[in-house]
Amino acid sequence: MPEENIVYIGNKPVMNYVLAVVTQVNGGTAQVVLKARGRAISRAVDVAEIVRNRFIPEIEIENIDISTEEIVGNEGGATNVSAIEIQLRKE
Amino acid sequence: MPEENIVYIGNKPVMNYVLAVVTQVNGGTAQVVLKARGRAISRAVDVAEIVRNRFIPEIEIENIDISTEEIVGNEGGATNVSAIEIQLRKE
Repeated sequence: MPEENIVYIGNKPVMNYVLAVVTQVNGGTAQVVLKARGRAISRAVDVAEIVRNRFIPEIEIENIDISTEEIVGNEGGATNVSAIEIQLRKE
Repeated sequence: MPEENIVYIGNKPVMNYVLAVVTQVNGGTAQVVLKARGRAISRAVDVAEIVRNRFIPEIEIENIDISTEEIVGNEGGATNVSAIEIQLRKE
């Protein structure tokens, strides 16, 4: 999908990511995917809800997927972390 | 749906909620719904992933919904908080 854009949600303030999504959509991107892991998952949900409720009401949540990712540390040990993908689409 | 059971995810350790879900499913409940708000959203995703990957592989994620809820405080002020509902079903 050439129109797909990914916004990775980390530890910055929520409004930084909201602005990133709004900028992409206003620039003509039809689909934006929010990706987050671990504690940032809650923030990804916040971003989707704020974009939809306050900025771009035409945005729909097309799909939400959750999964488990394995993170390998410097010592070689592996840890599992949950992840979420929220697909937003402007109708 | 009479078979539906709701597990509210709060601030307790993840395994408490995993045990609650596993107990319900092993007791014959076909569908379990995980509900969480705010920072507990990440924990709800952890619970779904741990149940599915470690305990009951036949569990499928039937649907995931996100929403915004308004919480009215003691002073009458209202705050918005994001919420998630994860529907699990044993095939």
